[in-house]
Amino acid sequence: MPDVVSIDPRTAAIAEVVSSTTTPQEVAALCVAAAAAALALERLGRAGRAAVLRSMADALESRGDDIISVADRETGIGPTRLGGELKRTCYQLRLFAEVLEDGGYLEATIDHAGDTPMGPRPDLRRMLVPIGPVAVFGSSNFPLAFSVPGGDTASALAAGSPVILKAHSSHPATSALCFELLLQGARAAGAPEGTVGIVYGQRAGSALVAHPAIKAVGFTGSLGGGGALMKIIAERPEPIPFYGELSSLNPVVITEAAAAERGDSIGAGLVASFTVAAGQLCTKPGLVFLPSGPAGDGVVAAMTAALAGVSEQVLLNERIFTDFGTGTAKLRATPGVAVIHQGAATATAGFHVAAQLVQVDAAELTGDSVDEHFGPVTIIARYTGIGNLERVLGELPASLTATVHSVTADAEYVAELSTLLRARAGRLIYDGYPTGVSVAWAQHHGGPWPSTNSLHTSVGPTAIRRFLRPVTWQDAPAHVLPAELRDDVKDIPRRVDGRLLPAIG
Amino acid sequence: MPDVVSIDPRTAAIAEVVSSTTTPQEVAALCVAAAAAALALERLGRAGRAAVLRSMADALESRGDDIISVADRETGIGPTRLGGELKRTCYQLRLFAEVLEDGGYLEATIDHAGDTPMGPRPDLRRMLVPIGPVAVFGSSNFPLAFSVPGGDTASALAAGSPVILKAHSSHPATSALCFELLLQGARAAGAPEGTVGIVYGQRAGSALVAHPAIKAVGFTGSLGGGGALMKIIAERPEPIPFYGELSSLNPVVITEAAAAERGDSIGAGLVASFTVAAGQLCTKPGLVFLPSGPAGDGVVAAMTAALAGVSEQVLLNERIFTDFGTGTAKLRATPGVAVIHQGAATATAGFHVAAQLVQVDAAELTGDSVDEHFGPVTIIARYTGIGNLERVLGELPASLTATVHSVTADAEYVAELSTLLRARAGRLIYDGYPTGVSVAWAQHHGGPWPSTNSLHTSVGPTAIRRFLRPVTWQDAPAHVLPAELRDDVKDIPRRVDGRLLPAIG
Repeated sequence: MPDVVSIDPRTAAIAEVVSSTTTPQEVAALCVAAAAAALALERLGRAGRAAVLRSMADALESRGDDIISVADRETGIGPTRLGGELKRTCYQLRLFAEVLEDGGYLEATIDHAGDTPMGPRPDLRRMLVPIGPVAVFGSSNFPLAFSVPGGDTASALAAGSPVILKAHSSHPATSALCFELLLQGARAAGAPEGTVGIVYGQRAGSALVAHPAIKAVGFTGSLGGGGALMKIIAERPEPIPFYGELSSLNPVVITEAAAAERGDSIGAGLVASFTVAAGQLCTKPGLVFLPSGPAGDGVVAAMTAALAGVSEQVLLNERIFTDFGTGTAKLRATPGVAVIHQGAATATAGFHVAAQLVQVDAAELTGDSVDEHFGPVTIIARYTGIGNLERVLGELPASLTATVHSVTADAEYVAELSTLLRARAGRLIYDGYPTGVSVAWAQHHGGPWPSTNSLHTSVGPTAIRRFLRPVTWQDAPAHVLPAELRDDVKDIPRRVDGRLLPAIG
Repeated sequence: MPDVVSIDPRTAAIAEVVSSTTTPQEVAALCVAAAAAALALERLGRAGRAAVLRSMADALESRGDDIISVADRETGIGPTRLGGELKRTCYQLRLFAEVLEDGGYLEATIDHAGDTPMGPRPDLRRMLVPIGPVAVFGSSNFPLAFSVPGGDTASALAAGSPVILKAHSSHPATSALCFELLLQGARAAGAPEGTVGIVYGQRAGSALVAHPAIKAVGFTGSLGGGGALMKIIAERPEPIPFYGELSSLNPVVITEAAAAERGDSIGAGLVASFTVAAGQLCTKPGLVFLPSGPAGDGVVAAMTAALAGVSEQVLLNERIFTDFGTGTAKLRATPGVAVIHQGAATATAGFHVAAQLVQVDAAELTGDSVDEHFGPVTIIARYTGIGNLERVLGELPASLTATVHSVTADAEYVAELSTLLRARAGRLIYDGYPTGVSVAWAQHHGGPWPSTNSLHTSVGPTAIRRFLRPVTWQDAPAHVLPAELRDDVKDIPRRVDGRLLPAIG
């Protein structure tokens, strides 16, 4: 089997050989082990799985410096951001432990036997149970928070579903180290063998998705990569849910009054948002609507000024580097596109780039004329009046986010824009920037196709719902019921005879 | 366009011409109207939509006798069952009105801005919003409760999603009358035009699923029909969720001790369950595991005795009638299959059949050797010890339900069976029968593939989740927030800063 190598994006040199690619036989063995572990993982119970998640966080933290060091060498993200990412992923593991203790995610529901307007009803008790082993495809851009450890892994394990990870080719050494620590954490807390597994190589990933033991797929990546996995799923005898986060332009609308009132800070904020992490965040503002005229000109000037202070950056891998070069060259050569800022990277080796800013007339945009570009570039679209703006917003592909900057006097117009944007995004941001996705109960990271194909978030507690299915027990003796559905339970929220009862104690 | 005709299954004669098939242009116009209605339907608010649902129930009841009369002529189901079905569908519409008033389905969640272990967090507010227009394909076997009116229609409208119905070819006159009444109810309660629409003909159904305005599909029918729609969805530029209820064997296991203790009542109960509604229910017990030896023989004798009292029945349509004939003939001719009971229908016209009962050795069964047969037939599988029983149960395709009859002393064994069966069913029934699906909060009507392809129920309040998607508002001014996410709301359950607060007042 070919070697899996770790490449340093700052030099494009091979830093180490991490592993060989996983063979189909090895993939099958991992799937069988995951299926065998499923029942024991569920039977650890909510407290037992909470301990596993916390133990995993502890294990990751115990080798934090090593993780950050190898991840930095492999991704070029830098130790500060990577430190934040590690903190985030450990916070997330522990938050899912709290979600388990809360128990509301189970949707535990009891209807006691009795007479109803429809006649006598049996005793019915409903709860969500784990869906079974889950395949998780990590992203390139969050090696610690959306990869081997991350929201998909944490939420699937919390649900009680074993996880088999597909290591991203862009950071295999980080993946291997993090996996080793997840495994160590799992074992220390008494999780069954097979709770976590890992595969390397694209063909191993395909074999994983095709395997009958796999019951759901979590994916963060490109529309193309997601499409290929959806095709494999469509050919399975048993279709399974595919939770993909795929593509997002994240439009930002600046009203005339907001541009006039605080153009400088908006310009600086936009540059910070589209260049953070070298513009490789899924929530990067990729299309910014600015009014034509002096107020908008002021924002452009502020952006240009801010860009002077942005150093050249290193992209995650060769594909992203090459795509950035060809994509932005094509963009700059498009009729009607004016180049506002085009830095040049000075480094001669590795995947270094400088930020770019281009401008178009919103009247010339159509919904399919704007592509997502991974990397530090954004497109300014200048609009006159709201007609063209609303037409283009109505035609754009849906995104994870949409943002509006306005002033108090814009209230009516902002309400109208909100309605339009809500149809095309999963998160609406006011007077802020789309990058930075808090891990919180009220978070939603997901949007209509093509941003995701899911009706669920991939960040925050409700992500757990993706890996659960309902079961109802009818007239069941108490001993076969899950503990949470027995009569005397008070420590989790339950809906009993139609009434939602909060947890007591 | 060809005529859509209503056929009397008791005579196979054409009773009336109902409509012409819907043209592609008409389908497109309905989809555009549904999309145009979506925002107004949502803005009716929860109270407004509750009024629409109740008004629809009132309208259906106002013409109850007419509905039952035409449905009976068209389906042969009989006025008693149809009366129960109409009651059920009106109950369900009114239950979804209560679900709207309860408001818990919104999953309203607020995280106030503040400091967290991860740093400062913006104000985040999350809620579920309607997914957009939904196509609903009614079933043949529940003309009133899973068809033009029914769980899919009620839950989608409650969610705030307009509904376009595909009338089932088996009862177009019932569909047309019910649709007229839903429309009348909708108008009387001030719902926007386009809230409900209807199409006739298979090609119109395909065009409906392909139309970009349609954002989800609810389907109750065959694996083949569902597969064809899934193929259309896979070819859409935008994939959409398909909620299909497709196929179910509904295995029943009778323990040796239960057979010995109450074989007579179990035998009679099984016959009632597999012959009710001429065996055309999706929860019909299609495979019954009985112990070999005298206790099991007693159940077989009781079933045979009960079958003597079962009159010949009329099936819903010619396809079901033909399939029943060829399917059961093939079954009876299978080596190892013994015919226990085979009545003969005396009627010479129409789609009349008599109940059948066959028996096989469980040791000879494999997971794919048993098919679902629509109509009054079930297969008894005799088992010796638990080895073969558990092997076959582990191989069977998943079902909507699984049932165990046991005695108290079987407790340990029942727990083991429950674990095995839970992996293969959405509802587990103890000492009862799978037919009869209560509309209740704790109900789950759905199971792993191929019984459904959904992680949601199609019966009961949580069915509404299928037609909703989450949206998060970040730092939004109060005037753009949905009413349920503003600060002063107390009348619905909400999770605020991580804590679930029940409704007050």
